[in-house]
Amino acid sequence: MRPIDERCINTIRMLSADAVEAARSGHPGLPMGAAPMVYTLWTRFLKHNPRNPAWPNRDRFIFSAGHGSMLLYSLLHLTGYDLFLDDLKSFRQWDSRTPGHPEVGVTAGVEATTGPLGQGFANGVGMAIAQAHLAAKFNRPDFDIVDHYIYGFCSDGDLMEGISHEAASLAGHLKLGRIIYLYDDNRISIEGSTDLAFTEGRGPRLTACGWHVQEVTDGNDPDAIEAAIRAAQAETNRPSLIAVRTHIGYGSPNKQDSEKAHGEPLGAEELLLTKQNLNWPAEPTFFIPEEVVKEMRTAVDRGQAWEDEWQERMDAYRKAHPEAAGALDRMMNLEFPEDWESRIPEFPPDLTGMPTRVASGKALNALASVIPGLMGGSADLGPSNKTLLEGESDFQAGNYGGRNLRFGVREHGMTAVLNGMALYGGFIPYGGTFLIFSEYMRPAVRMAALMGLHVIYVFTHDSIGLGEDGPTHQPVEQLAGLRAIPNLTVIRPGDANETAQAWRVAMNLTGGPVALVLTRQGVPTLERDDCGSARDLEKGAYVLRDPQGKDPEMILIGSGSELNTVMAAADLLAQEGIAVRVVSMPSWELFDQQPEAYRRSVLPPNIPLRMAVEAGSPQGWHYYVGDRGKVLGIDRFGASAPYKVLFEKYGITARHVYEEAKALYKQKNGIGL
Amino acid sequence: MRPIDERCINTIRMLSADAVEAARSGHPGLPMGAAPMVYTLWTRFLKHNPRNPAWPNRDRFIFSAGHGSMLLYSLLHLTGYDLFLDDLKSFRQWDSRTPGHPEVGVTAGVEATTGPLGQGFANGVGMAIAQAHLAAKFNRPDFDIVDHYIYGFCSDGDLMEGISHEAASLAGHLKLGRIIYLYDDNRISIEGSTDLAFTEGRGPRLTACGWHVQEVTDGNDPDAIEAAIRAAQAETNRPSLIAVRTHIGYGSPNKQDSEKAHGEPLGAEELLLTKQNLNWPAEPTFFIPEEVVKEMRTAVDRGQAWEDEWQERMDAYRKAHPEAAGALDRMMNLEFPEDWESRIPEFPPDLTGMPTRVASGKALNALASVIPGLMGGSADLGPSNKTLLEGESDFQAGNYGGRNLRFGVREHGMTAVLNGMALYGGFIPYGGTFLIFSEYMRPAVRMAALMGLHVIYVFTHDSIGLGEDGPTHQPVEQLAGLRAIPNLTVIRPGDANETAQAWRVAMNLTGGPVALVLTRQGVPTLERDDCGSARDLEKGAYVLRDPQGKDPEMILIGSGSELNTVMAAADLLAQEGIAVRVVSMPSWELFDQQPEAYRRSVLPPNIPLRMAVEAGSPQGWHYYVGDRGKVLGIDRFGASAPYKVLFEKYGITARHVYEEAKALYKQKNGIGL
Repeated sequence: MRPIDERCINTIRMLSADAVEAARSGHPGLPMGAAPMVYTLWTRFLKHNPRNPAWPNRDRFIFSAGHGSMLLYSLLHLTGYDLFLDDLKSFRQWDSRTPGHPEVGVTAGVEATTGPLGQGFANGVGMAIAQAHLAAKFNRPDFDIVDHYIYGFCSDGDLMEGISHEAASLAGHLKLGRIIYLYDDNRISIEGSTDLAFTEGRGPRLTACGWHVQEVTDGNDPDAIEAAIRAAQAETNRPSLIAVRTHIGYGSPNKQDSEKAHGEPLGAEELLLTKQNLNWPAEPTFFIPEEVVKEMRTAVDRGQAWEDEWQERMDAYRKAHPEAAGALDRMMNLEFPEDWESRIPEFPPDLTGMPTRVASGKALNALASVIPGLMGGSADLGPSNKTLLEGESDFQAGNYGGRNLRFGVREHGMTAVLNGMALYGGFIPYGGTFLIFSEYMRPAVRMAALMGLHVIYVFTHDSIGLGEDGPTHQPVEQLAGLRAIPNLTVIRPGDANETAQAWRVAMNLTGGPVALVLTRQGVPTLERDDCGSARDLEKGAYVLRDPQGKDPEMILIGSGSELNTVMAAADLLAQEGIAVRVVSMPSWELFDQQPEAYRRSVLPPNIPLRMAVEAGSPQGWHYYVGDRGKVLGIDRFGASAPYKVLFEKYGITARHVYEEAKALYKQKNGIGL
Repeated sequence: MRPIDERCINTIRMLSADAVEAARSGHPGLPMGAAPMVYTLWTRFLKHNPRNPAWPNRDRFIFSAGHGSMLLYSLLHLTGYDLFLDDLKSFRQWDSRTPGHPEVGVTAGVEATTGPLGQGFANGVGMAIAQAHLAAKFNRPDFDIVDHYIYGFCSDGDLMEGISHEAASLAGHLKLGRIIYLYDDNRISIEGSTDLAFTEGRGPRLTACGWHVQEVTDGNDPDAIEAAIRAAQAETNRPSLIAVRTHIGYGSPNKQDSEKAHGEPLGAEELLLTKQNLNWPAEPTFFIPEEVVKEMRTAVDRGQAWEDEWQERMDAYRKAHPEAAGALDRMMNLEFPEDWESRIPEFPPDLTGMPTRVASGKALNALASVIPGLMGGSADLGPSNKTLLEGESDFQAGNYGGRNLRFGVREHGMTAVLNGMALYGGFIPYGGTFLIFSEYMRPAVRMAALMGLHVIYVFTHDSIGLGEDGPTHQPVEQLAGLRAIPNLTVIRPGDANETAQAWRVAMNLTGGPVALVLTRQGVPTLERDDCGSARDLEKGAYVLRDPQGKDPEMILIGSGSELNTVMAAADLLAQEGIAVRVVSMPSWELFDQQPEAYRRSVLPPNIPLRMAVEAGSPQGWHYYVGDRGKVLGIDRFGASAPYKVLFEKYGITARHVYEEAKALYKQKNGIGL
């Protein structure tokens, strides 16, 4: 190793240890052990431009083991990103640009928010899918305008999490050769040696999944790391994992190779001993030798040169292939054609009805035909979720231009892959499964919400209406659980036209993920002549129907398949002279964002008799119905039977809603309890 | 194959196809393809007693691919379990004993509720842990009283789900040689050929995880299947997977080897063609040849003989080792010593305070010292979760008597393993992780709730109080999400003594899982002389303190670390003459189960000014505070900073609670919106 390499690496190590020490919190051991491999990747391979972190053709670098964030922050600072020494000094402090785990949007150069293990590993697979698809669609002979690697850095924890298996198996299947992951094989996790719980053959396991696996036995040898990365680049048909044997807390005389170096500061004394051991000055802290700055800042000029070279290529491409270039621009900017909304289907009234999942499939297909970035698939439930794009081929090895993704029974991996595609840019990815299996997806759904990614989930079979498959497959608490996630918009449309409108709204909600919650069973398509417009779905809740010639005395609120139930119950009540307003409430989040005046116009405080009906957990509905209101929901598990029987047994019928509403009407209620 | 074997196998096939046809719903293809392997296992190996499905030393058989339930039901009926032909005829109907997916407790002989893929695979690992532990503790030379196999049946979907990797890696690490799983390698999933998404080397992957893997190329060859199972039994040091190449929908001329045989009835015409093809009478449906009944019902006598033989051994063991036998009985009956409650620690008042996770660790250790079935661990966060039992060794290969489980970073696998241990009997298993990572666990938590398993989750680091790790690690919506799950009891104790009481309550809640939600940071241990007793935690909510000599004018409600915040705010309000009742509300579920009179005594309808404070999603709290009340929660993601800064920034401070409560006091509120 050149002396300057060692100086640079030790700078990273000691910046990290100093920052953790100053914050009195963090993970010093990982950066100290893994600095050489990431340094080698960044200085000898990574094509990036610190002055333009958004350069489209940059190599991506996913730091999946987010707890080692100081390693990344150190590199970002040293290579000239918009991240200063003062930022490093405010590591893990309020409002700093150096939070405990890397956060996309907070820190320039961070490609994904990471920390929950395995997520970043799978995000990279999504990025590689995005890259492969764009390359297949837009590259031309002599014009490789989409041409870069997806590098990643992962840890033992990433590989232990099941999501890494799902993502690895999919990546191997798809032969995503542009993926090159460094694995920090330090053999220490929080409880101690990985021998306690993690003795699988990591290499053979990934080889079995179609990966190209290498080992570097000395994690402090940049040349060996370089050789391995070079071999990984040469392998174009398989994703690569390079297991690099490292020593957590490298350099610390008493904590190296121990879990004590994992998740807490070394301590003043040990930090001093470490600096002595590495021939590093004890003072000042956050010391960066001048020659290190000089060496590492060469990344700025190199980065600009790379981007310039690419820009030249891009300019030539624009001339040679103006149409393709225009299409690429529109895709990367997620521009929709002006008339895109006119594509959204309108469904004629239909008493027999249509499952909202079917309406969803039609809307999706109509939109996808004019919005190429709308790309996704299902976790092996495409025929049920209606997520297949007609007339499009599968995205598969050898056919990366295909648009239908086949995720397999891998809901969690799918969701994190969608995140990676959204992070890459150019895509509004979507993924389908049964609503119940949103449970398998949740950690990655949360990441989408936290990152503000525009991803669309197609959740079908949304209640006991799923029928015979029984309680293991019938969602009850899933709506409540999803609604609790900040920045996720949940929409449960009540008929085919609300479903089409839900897709319109979902396309516009660019700041976070959207969950469409859809029926398996048919629901009548409402006659809208005497009803509120389905377009009003965008407001989250709207007056679907008011009593004729009378002020409403009570309000019935329904969502999804219960909207029709509530309408029928209102008819029964009307026959007895009770004037009922019917409110369609497909989305709490959209409704909560409306001005107070609108909200009070839909649910006026002077009509306290309200009843909400939803075939799911009542949790949270009391907020909308108030103390004198009632919620008709389901607070126990489902059962196996035909769905009509279930709705009867669980009391989600027009007759039962009518009875409960009438009881409410008769009764003067006190406060909720 | 003997003709009688073929008759039996075809009976299973056609019973399954007929039942699906009658139900107009279900999965015929799997039973038709996989009947020979499961038949072979059941008739040549499985040691069970149809007349006593609870025989403790029976082999366990986990049907992980639950959608093929008719295969299992057919075998249960044919071998003489309490399941009749009429039950098969009411497949997937309301209140039948043959629901769409197998449900433990509903059908005799079903060992686990399965359907959500991968769960059963992991449950079996938990059962094998349970068996190994009991064998290590209670077997004596010449007395192998715990001595049986854990068989399982799994599908492509099971192996695609990440949880199967977590469980497989753990099982291989632990060298659980008693596990023998048959894998239905039919190469078809719902979207079509597994070539669409699942081309990994299943065998090599599991070999890498320490499994013994075999292939049987002809799934219709009982002798080959028998040979493989025999070899698997001979391999005592590794779990076994036997990949059996089968043909989904075997026998169906037009649907065999097609996804069309997967999830819907064959259709009358194709069913007829299939029967012709298999030389099976078209009528009657649900036909069972007499010789098949005779052949298969031999299971009853064989089963009784096995149990009798074991019972003899057990009797001799009782004589030879009366103490061990008594201990085993107490363990299997989950009997606690009479004075167990006296073990629960009491903590002296302490203003500096103690993190509730620390109090939890002490309570757990105290209880575990007298309750041997309390066994568990953490998903690599033991030192943080305080789940380690002091003075106990690790459960590891070679030391199955150890009680501390090391799950690795495998929250989902851990949770399903705990389910398997609980299903096995003799254990109240517990598992720890950060509350945020409950997200990774949810599908298996739901299964625990659905099955009514007594499992305890130790969720620490329960809010933004986690501090510097930032939003990826800070729970916000997790309390709401867990509370929505039916039959899961969530308890968030407010100080050390409430925590100890939470453990007491958790030990008594035998009908379902319990989630203990605990702080990272210290919270004061309350002086209880002038307060309600921590024992009242068992009621879910109780009056912690009432104003002296005055009727309360308003109620402040707090849980967990916010209990103290609320107390301090009440003091500030009292200084201004506002009479405040403070209610500790650690558990909604427990409170909701109290008689109405009690609930109204804690939250009297005539005190509508109420404010709930919890550092988490407000969702659902409105039910308790009512229209004139207020909820002070957190409805956005957290941030990275020291925890005291975060509580300040998010307004969870005594000062801010005081201000908000005062504003509420001054204001006449209308209905909630």
